[in-house]
Amino acid sequence: MSNVKKVVLAYSGGLDTSIILRWLEDTYGCEVVTFTADLGQGEELEPARAKAQAMGVKEIYIEDLREEFVRDYVFPMFRANTIYEGEYLLGTSIARPLIAKRLIEIANETGADAISHGATGKGNDQVRFELGAYALKPGVKVIAPWREWDLLSREKLMTYAEEHNIPVDFKKAGKKSPYSMDANLLHISYEGGILEDPWAEPEEDMWRWSVSPENAPNEPTYIELTYEKGDIVAIDGESLKAHEVLAKLNKLGGDNGIGRLDIVENRYVGMKSRGAYETPGGTIMMRAHRAIESITLDREVAHLKDSVMPKYAELIYNGYWWSPERQMLQTMIDESQSVVNGVVRVKLYKGNVTVVGRKSDDSLFDEKIATFEDDAGAYDQKDAEGFIKLNALRLRIAAQKGR
Amino acid sequence: MSNVKKVVLAYSGGLDTSIILRWLEDTYGCEVVTFTADLGQGEELEPARAKAQAMGVKEIYIEDLREEFVRDYVFPMFRANTIYEGEYLLGTSIARPLIAKRLIEIANETGADAISHGATGKGNDQVRFELGAYALKPGVKVIAPWREWDLLSREKLMTYAEEHNIPVDFKKAGKKSPYSMDANLLHISYEGGILEDPWAEPEEDMWRWSVSPENAPNEPTYIELTYEKGDIVAIDGESLKAHEVLAKLNKLGGDNGIGRLDIVENRYVGMKSRGAYETPGGTIMMRAHRAIESITLDREVAHLKDSVMPKYAELIYNGYWWSPERQMLQTMIDESQSVVNGVVRVKLYKGNVTVVGRKSDDSLFDEKIATFEDDAGAYDQKDAEGFIKLNALRLRIAAQKGR
Amino acid sequence: MSNVKKVVLAYSGGLDTSIILRWLEDTYGCEVVTFTADLGQGEELEPARAKAQAMGVKEIYIEDLREEFVRDYVFPMFRANTIYEGEYLLGTSIARPLIAKRLIEIANETGADAISHGATGKGNDQVRFELGAYALKPGVKVIAPWREWDLLSREKLMTYAEEHNIPVDFKKAGKKSPYSMDANLLHISYEGGILEDPWAEPEEDMWRWSVSPENAPNEPTYIELTYEKGDIVAIDGESLKAHEVLAKLNKLGGDNGIGRLDIVENRYVGMKSRGAYETPGGTIMMRAHRAIESITLDREVAHLKDSVMPKYAELIYNGYWWSPERQMLQTMIDESQSVVNGVVRVKLYKGNVTVVGRKSDDSLFDEKIATFEDDAGAYDQKDAEGFIKLNALRLRIAAQKGR
Amino acid sequence: MSNVKKVVLAYSGGLDTSIILRWLEDTYGCEVVTFTADLGQGEELEPARAKAQAMGVKEIYIEDLREEFVRDYVFPMFRANTIYEGEYLLGTSIARPLIAKRLIEIANETGADAISHGATGKGNDQVRFELGAYALKPGVKVIAPWREWDLLSREKLMTYAEEHNIPVDFKKAGKKSPYSMDANLLHISYEGGILEDPWAEPEEDMWRWSVSPENAPNEPTYIELTYEKGDIVAIDGESLKAHEVLAKLNKLGGDNGIGRLDIVENRYVGMKSRGAYETPGGTIMMRAHRAIESITLDREVAHLKDSVMPKYAELIYNGYWWSPERQMLQTMIDESQSVVNGVVRVKLYKGNVTVVGRKSDDSLFDEKIATFEDDAGAYDQKDAEGFIKLNALRLRIAAQKGR
Repeated sequence: MSNVKKVVLAYSGGLDTSIILRWLEDTYGCEVVTFTADLGQGEELEPARAKAQAMGVKEIYIEDLREEFVRDYVFPMFRANTIYEGEYLLGTSIARPLIAKRLIEIANETGADAISHGATGKGNDQVRFELGAYALKPGVKVIAPWREWDLLSREKLMTYAEEHNIPVDFKKAGKKSPYSMDANLLHISYEGGILEDPWAEPEEDMWRWSVSPENAPNEPTYIELTYEKGDIVAIDGESLKAHEVLAKLNKLGGDNGIGRLDIVENRYVGMKSRGAYETPGGTIMMRAHRAIESITLDREVAHLKDSVMPKYAELIYNGYWWSPERQMLQTMIDESQSVVNGVVRVKLYKGNVTVVGRKSDDSLFDEKIATFEDDAGAYDQKDAEGFIKLNALRLRIAAQKGR
Repeated sequence: MSNVKKVVLAYSGGLDTSIILRWLEDTYGCEVVTFTADLGQGEELEPARAKAQAMGVKEIYIEDLREEFVRDYVFPMFRANTIYEGEYLLGTSIARPLIAKRLIEIANETGADAISHGATGKGNDQVRFELGAYALKPGVKVIAPWREWDLLSREKLMTYAEEHNIPVDFKKAGKKSPYSMDANLLHISYEGGILEDPWAEPEEDMWRWSVSPENAPNEPTYIELTYEKGDIVAIDGESLKAHEVLAKLNKLGGDNGIGRLDIVENRYVGMKSRGAYETPGGTIMMRAHRAIESITLDREVAHLKDSVMPKYAELIYNGYWWSPERQMLQTMIDESQSVVNGVVRVKLYKGNVTVVGRKSDDSLFDEKIATFEDDAGAYDQKDAEGFIKLNALRLRIAAQKGR
Repeated sequence: MSNVKKVVLAYSGGLDTSIILRWLEDTYGCEVVTFTADLGQGEELEPARAKAQAMGVKEIYIEDLREEFVRDYVFPMFRANTIYEGEYLLGTSIARPLIAKRLIEIANETGADAISHGATGKGNDQVRFELGAYALKPGVKVIAPWREWDLLSREKLMTYAEEHNIPVDFKKAGKKSPYSMDANLLHISYEGGILEDPWAEPEEDMWRWSVSPENAPNEPTYIELTYEKGDIVAIDGESLKAHEVLAKLNKLGGDNGIGRLDIVENRYVGMKSRGAYETPGGTIMMRAHRAIESITLDREVAHLKDSVMPKYAELIYNGYWWSPERQMLQTMIDESQSVVNGVVRVKLYKGNVTVVGRKSDDSLFDEKIATFEDDAGAYDQKDAEGFIKLNALRLRIAAQKGR
Repeated sequence: MSNVKKVVLAYSGGLDTSIILRWLEDTYGCEVVTFTADLGQGEELEPARAKAQAMGVKEIYIEDLREEFVRDYVFPMFRANTIYEGEYLLGTSIARPLIAKRLIEIANETGADAISHGATGKGNDQVRFELGAYALKPGVKVIAPWREWDLLSREKLMTYAEEHNIPVDFKKAGKKSPYSMDANLLHISYEGGILEDPWAEPEEDMWRWSVSPENAPNEPTYIELTYEKGDIVAIDGESLKAHEVLAKLNKLGGDNGIGRLDIVENRYVGMKSRGAYETPGGTIMMRAHRAIESITLDREVAHLKDSVMPKYAELIYNGYWWSPERQMLQTMIDESQSVVNGVVRVKLYKGNVTVVGRKSDDSLFDEKIATFEDDAGAYDQKDAEGFIKLNALRLRIAAQKGR
């Protein structure tokens, strides 16, 4: 364990990563660089700086990555209408590749030979961090303390913190949430506690980002979302940066009781786990993106996208953002979005996201052809007979042969 | 046109199919057998009998197919979590194969050499009826009046009816809905009218099966759905037949403002069209089925199902229920459902369907392994290192080579 | 039929298209522009010019499209390792999009409002021509004489030719091959005649481009193929243009008895048909391309390509080259080929194409890791245990639950 | 290492597994049960019994599994036309699940708590053995000596053998092949040695099962293969058991220079490796099976099979035979084979396998429809126009909109 000289740690400023910080120094005799990022999780970053300084860290990276996160990770993912296992919008998964990338870039800048993170050995996040790190810097050493140390209970952690003079707010730690949580601009997640029983309903006071549908306003909210190349660029006509779009949709969605999800999912490491999620803005974006695609995309392009989506979602969930196959799929998905321009009108009401209008200069919807009224010859109904007869030919031959 | 002797007509008793009835007799000089089915569309069938009799039809088939419809068509489709283009639950599509089958069976019973239906030449239903018919009786003659005649406006139809003494209720016909509608136990659909403008929001009085979320009760309704082999067999512990399950869920869903959908979809004949749908029970079943699968299905089985689902949905939408490839996929899907047993608890509230609990004797959810607490060695976190290292190997080699 | 003013005809100079030429003039009273292309079919084009002139055609297009054909159609298709139904290299299919494109471009240049071709109503080629034409010029009128006229037997055609003074070489016509043939630089195909019995073996004298393996040289031929971005750019170190590559490989393959194929395939119009093909150069390219990819492509990229290939092949076979979904797939496939550079060594011998070596500066093959000898720690075998244990976890849990 | 009481070892009787036998006893202080199977590798089994006895083994299992191997593993795999990465017929992969199953069954019979095998930590076979073992007996302990011990060079192994009085034939060991080989009825494989350089051509004397095409007879051999439900049941009219079929085809193929393959493949553990294979009978079966399917399978069934084949091949290659997803796919594949009956005529000549005829009572090939001659109205060419027009509709609308 002596061959690590400097390690970049994904540092939140909380108890766990503060203990990891000290443990790395003690165990590896190495220098620690901390990296703390604002991905929209809704916490101040300066306390993390103060804590790192108090623990003697010399190289402290504190960064606001919100715009990059939404523009280069969240939005590209939504272009594919990405859903894991029919339900999950991948809020945690999509943040990890960016953190992995910055860990490695900082390692390169500071001459560090290792990175470290606070993810456990049971979850998906370790995989996402580490696959990204190895893909970007193949010789890097990864230290995952939860897989190495024996501080596997809350008591041992607290004792370790006390013995090593780690400046944590013990009162706050004592009132720790019963849930393991993660948040960024796309979502907040909850695991553990009573959620470990899949028959138990989450308690109302667990949810932090949204009111319940019951407590949402009695009047609906209507908004118009403007799309360019598959991304939202304006809300109600106001141009916004990517992260501003998502922040505003989170506010609108959360206020209207939108985006709660409670599922059992299959982790890449082989087990099932229960998770609860709030994804207010993402839930709105998902419906609205399908709506703008519904009038602008060719049918077969849309179906091809749908057929590769489960694979694409699996890649992101499993941590393969930085793989060549994800990038290859992204090329195809992005190619399809050049025509995905226009406006979607959405109604938000007590948990419901309802698309009520869509329009586009690139629309392929043709009223003249689709109409039930006289179409003035735009479509020759007699063509349908040949269409059906030839599509039926193989079925008829088979039936004639007694199949 | 003289070579048709007897034709079986899918007859609703309404104006359009009454005109078709007479037109077939006049144009082909053939005998007409009428077939009217109760698929749960919510209309009395006896008036259709009376009308057919009044028009001189000798062979009249009136049948209650509700149980067969839900048991053998709707439920198998829901086993696959089937959604077309990310949104549509295929309510119209799934009823057509059964009607096609009965048309052909009646043709065989009555010695008819042709079938006829009232679907237009622009839509999907003609394809679904006719592919089914050809697959089941390859030599059958199909007559699709809308593709043949010149009665292409409302006025011409009314004139024809008057001239041919067709006993329609003209007052009712005059107050005809502006929408083209279709209904069965799974859904009611609306097309045409102001829906032909995809930017226009449907009017509240269009919807027939559900209250709006705004008008739904202020108290949630909780229900428990019992699954056996992927199908719901009981609600709140009460055993029900397939169609009773769906009828009850329609009532529960409709009362709680659940199941409205407003989309632009891609028809098989090549155009985009706007459709509005109410699928109260189906919307509940979709969420609940995913929930029971989430604890009982193996991860890779679930992902494999997800990967073939778009294809399966496309087959049903396009009218290929009676094709060997649909049956081949069904074999695989049904095989997966033997373990899909258990109970799902669902909350219904103002348009929201929320899964709040799931349990099963066949659950693969293992609290001992998934727990954030001490797992007593059930899972060795150190295994994760090798897992990640080898999954990363190809990425590391590529990075070392400068990719 | 009076509304066609000028039609561009795909004209070979043979009897059938000469009859079509005259029939178009007679039937539609329109002017005919002829288009004859050299796609490497191995026939002189000047006789076609002379015949068109003799028949009074004023606008005659004769073009050498060999380079464009191979560079922009054949090579892109081979980047995907494209095979239809496990066997067929799509030699006919891939030529049609280029002909369709030139027909439309010439229509635009000459102010023609229609195009015409000599493909029958039973085959795939009509679909390929016409889907391309409609995609590139949606308002074009397509005239397919074989679907319209009543000249459905050889005798009627000959009578028509005689009556209309069509200058065909009747002696040659009398000795017509019993097979329907099509040729271009990628292949020559045979249909009809005794091939209509799938149990009958083709006669040796049917084959035109290759010697039989029995008659091939007793000494093998070794060649080295240099790849850049997935395309062959040199043979044995000599730089060649795309069509020169294919011409040379056809010669080498044909001389060595390579590339014969005899299959029953499924046409898009719904029937099965027997076809025999000679694709000497293409058969070599297929094996060699897989070989250069085997050392340069990432595993998952290669597998993703393999998973979409059947769809891509189907699109080309069915005539959807000019569709947005084919172009979308092409974007992804081309993206993957930037690293497909290097040299493949191939042995040709009596029908066999054997890859005997492959090398590349972009190789991901790593002898240090793959070796059975001591690898000096490049790979830690202990990682495999964790890899297997976690991949097995879901299987173990299922087994423990009694599955 | 003390908690293993009895281990079942996959024992070949060779040097390596004899050393493992002794090493297990020494290292774990456990009893060893040996299991040696005849899978058609072409070696006598009795010497293995003698050696095991000489080393003091009390429970010795020697079994002829050839019929089960081909009937329940090889044949089901060939029903799917299974090829890994476009080339490899999975000869090694398909044998491992059966060995894993017998190891576990013997462990259950003998009360053993562990299994062991001689596969290295770099290869696929360890994964295949162990995934199977864990799926069938989730609590089993697996001992993979190559991942544990330090006997990583030939010298160390020989020294260990000498020190532990292992009765190996040192002379034979000294003349050991430079290749790592594996054989069963489906194939023989070669890795290592000069093959570690992918540019080097294998030496002629490496190949053991086939003559070279150069040395094959100058006269072709014709055979007729009779299929029932997708499996070969007779050759030239002689009914044979599954393993007899494969043995005979190996002889016929090997004599005619058929079935050699030389590739670089992607291992599941993340590296590329060079392999050479002889699969004479399998190569014949692959071509013949496609041929019988070509006349008996519906087009869309065949295409659906093709679309899932790469996934199915990957599952077998990666060791997931005993997974629920492989079994789910198998259900679908087997379902498709009920109509795959008939006879295929094949010509074997100097490395070439040429299908020259196929016939079946279940044929869907319809000469009356496919013919170039007059079809007496079996197919209405005019249907093609509507078929094309509607398939083109979306392309035309897009073009009209300026796409």
